[in-house]
Amino acid sequence: MENVQEKQIVLWPHDEFELRLSKIRSEMEATSTEALLLTDNANIYYLTGRVFAGYAYIPLKGMPIFFVKRPVELEGDGIVYIRKPEEITASIGMSAPSNIALELDVLPYSMASRLIPVFPGAEIRNASPLMRTVRAVKTPLAMDMLRQSGAKHTRVYRRIPGLFQEGMSDYDLQVSIEHLSRLQGCLGQFRISGDTMELYMGNVLAGRNADAPSPYDFAMGGAGMDPSLPVGANGTLITPGTTVMVDINGNYNGYMTDMTRVFALGDLEPLAERAHQCSIDIHHALCDMMHPGTPAKALWEKAEQIVTEADLKPYYMGHRQHAGFIGHGVGIEINELPVIAPRSRDIIQEGNVIALEPKFVIPHVGAVGIENTYIVHSDHVECITLAPEEIIYFDR
Amino acid sequence: MENVQEKQIVLWPHDEFELRLSKIRSEMEATSTEALLLTDNANIYYLTGRVFAGYAYIPLKGMPIFFVKRPVELEGDGIVYIRKPEEITASIGMSAPSNIALELDVLPYSMASRLIPVFPGAEIRNASPLMRTVRAVKTPLAMDMLRQSGAKHTRVYRRIPGLFQEGMSDYDLQVSIEHLSRLQGCLGQFRISGDTMELYMGNVLAGRNADAPSPYDFAMGGAGMDPSLPVGANGTLITPGTTVMVDINGNYNGYMTDMTRVFALGDLEPLAERAHQCSIDIHHALCDMMHPGTPAKALWEKAEQIVTEADLKPYYMGHRQHAGFIGHGVGIEINELPVIAPRSRDIIQEGNVIALEPKFVIPHVGAVGIENTYIVHSDHVECITLAPEEIIYFDR
Repeated sequence: MENVQEKQIVLWPHDEFELRLSKIRSEMEATSTEALLLTDNANIYYLTGRVFAGYAYIPLKGMPIFFVKRPVELEGDGIVYIRKPEEITASIGMSAPSNIALELDVLPYSMASRLIPVFPGAEIRNASPLMRTVRAVKTPLAMDMLRQSGAKHTRVYRRIPGLFQEGMSDYDLQVSIEHLSRLQGCLGQFRISGDTMELYMGNVLAGRNADAPSPYDFAMGGAGMDPSLPVGANGTLITPGTTVMVDINGNYNGYMTDMTRVFALGDLEPLAERAHQCSIDIHHALCDMMHPGTPAKALWEKAEQIVTEADLKPYYMGHRQHAGFIGHGVGIEINELPVIAPRSRDIIQEGNVIALEPKFVIPHVGAVGIENTYIVHSDHVECITLAPEEIIYFDR
Repeated sequence: MENVQEKQIVLWPHDEFELRLSKIRSEMEATSTEALLLTDNANIYYLTGRVFAGYAYIPLKGMPIFFVKRPVELEGDGIVYIRKPEEITASIGMSAPSNIALELDVLPYSMASRLIPVFPGAEIRNASPLMRTVRAVKTPLAMDMLRQSGAKHTRVYRRIPGLFQEGMSDYDLQVSIEHLSRLQGCLGQFRISGDTMELYMGNVLAGRNADAPSPYDFAMGGAGMDPSLPVGANGTLITPGTTVMVDINGNYNGYMTDMTRVFALGDLEPLAERAHQCSIDIHHALCDMMHPGTPAKALWEKAEQIVTEADLKPYYMGHRQHAGFIGHGVGIEINELPVIAPRSRDIIQEGNVIALEPKFVIPHVGAVGIENTYIVHSDHVECITLAPEEIIYFDR
């Protein structure tokens, strides 16, 4: 697209770039960090609005330097083409920092060990928590991008009933929804922090597949079609009396929304309907609390209380295997801060974008419950995933 | 699927598991490595035939221990459920190794730093080169899986001409091929080693998009639809006199093939036809040399020689930006050993599975050339990606 063909290394509007840089620098200042070296694609994109192979060097004061390996032909202030990270030392020269933060939570050990001597004498710190903190509070531009992803994501979800055909399995429906999503401009890849998480286009899980114990740390993972990639649809037929849970990729512009809805055939047992309503009730209760200053774990506890009072605990967040969180920040990656979990130390902030996903697995029925993405404002919470929330019956 | 619902931690047949274990152990023996701790999904899958969250501990002698975090309910010899890696120490107890190899090329620095004290007093080594070496030589079962992926992959490619409609862009064609691939059982995710490489379902690149300088280390990357994920189709129209290069995901069972073919509309300038034939000629010449004992760089040099003699150097492996390799091992991940590159120190071995991709970018036309996946046998090379190799004209 046009944007990519631009050769400017910074694709964000000037003010947006300055805003992001200043957000990073105020965290650096707060932690007495003198310099930061970013190389993770998600962080490089956060700062510049594009992905490049190389490093963004951000001193607390002075111009950032972009050390670029690929692509060729980039233009802009502060670009230095390099082939090896060791070439960074010469460019920094006299202004070598006394400490530097590297992305130690994502940088492979071998690469970090190679980067550390590039900054001789500097104390090495971890940039990952710092960048997670910065990225947890979205800029107004990012919020607009999230609203746009949410609108496209919603449009796809509204069309799901039209995709269903009798005799479909969860895999058939997943492939149809993926195709529709791509036709609507879905970029086709979830970004997830960490190499151990793997996901393609999200999950469509019918009936008992929703309860398949997963190796991945998703709320519900599914068994997948092959043990080499055990996630998502596994070919379970969509049959009367069972549900199919759709949790499909909402990445339309680099900032993604997360949304889950439930579809069904025939009549569901009352327990399933009741649990689905309980999920909606939890959303309402949590939205009433999800204001700046609320501890994330208070949200988790409130949900626990509602579930316990409704006597639905055995089904909550899985039946055979239980997920350890009911919500998470979302943005460039699907697993950002804050985390809504029992031992979370995060505090809700204005500008957080949070996906809440209190879900249930009902044996012999499947998964119920919804997931929405919310923007936290100073005095209210804005839902940006607006597809209908009730269970949609394909045959009614 | 059935396989995943099995609770056995090792899904390979017993003999296959023993073979893989013995291959790992003979590398351990050759490098005096006393113990190995695997956690990377690709390596866990290599050993067990499934993915789990946790660690496989392999002592040089004695039973492996599987330290599992997720999924629940796994059964088999040597399983220890843990919540934290620190619990590994107690299980290893008296037989603590004097050295241990960790996957330092993929383990994040923070995680490696947490694992190192789990083995007090042990010398820490790098398991990544060892596992890359082991995985570079495929077992007979893996070869069969690769042949099966290759057959399905080929079936999809043969049907590409039927997907084309006038007025399509590379994005439209990419989405159609992805959909067909998924309907044929493509698992929907390329596995790539390293967090900095991102790819979804492969690339379809029309016309000048084939020459877009890419941040990723692919032979040709494309600009993508959005600067947040600058890879693949970018919406370039497929017009008369230009080509569209298809390099789509061949992962049908955990072992994947890599294949590229070129399609076109109208008449191409003779230079493009000639360069395409030169790519095919390089394949033939390299297959004649690709026997056990040949240095990988000799293959690269032979290709250079053919290209230079054909006077096609300016177009070889890109025009604006040039790729640094013309082939690579393929299997569980798309970037395995050996690497066919000028400074490669790899030696071709029996059982290597190698994708060769000598390609050209012709200005104003697009990319030409093919990619095939080959199994190296003792006395011949077996091509397992058998779609027609000539340029296929949609309108002839």
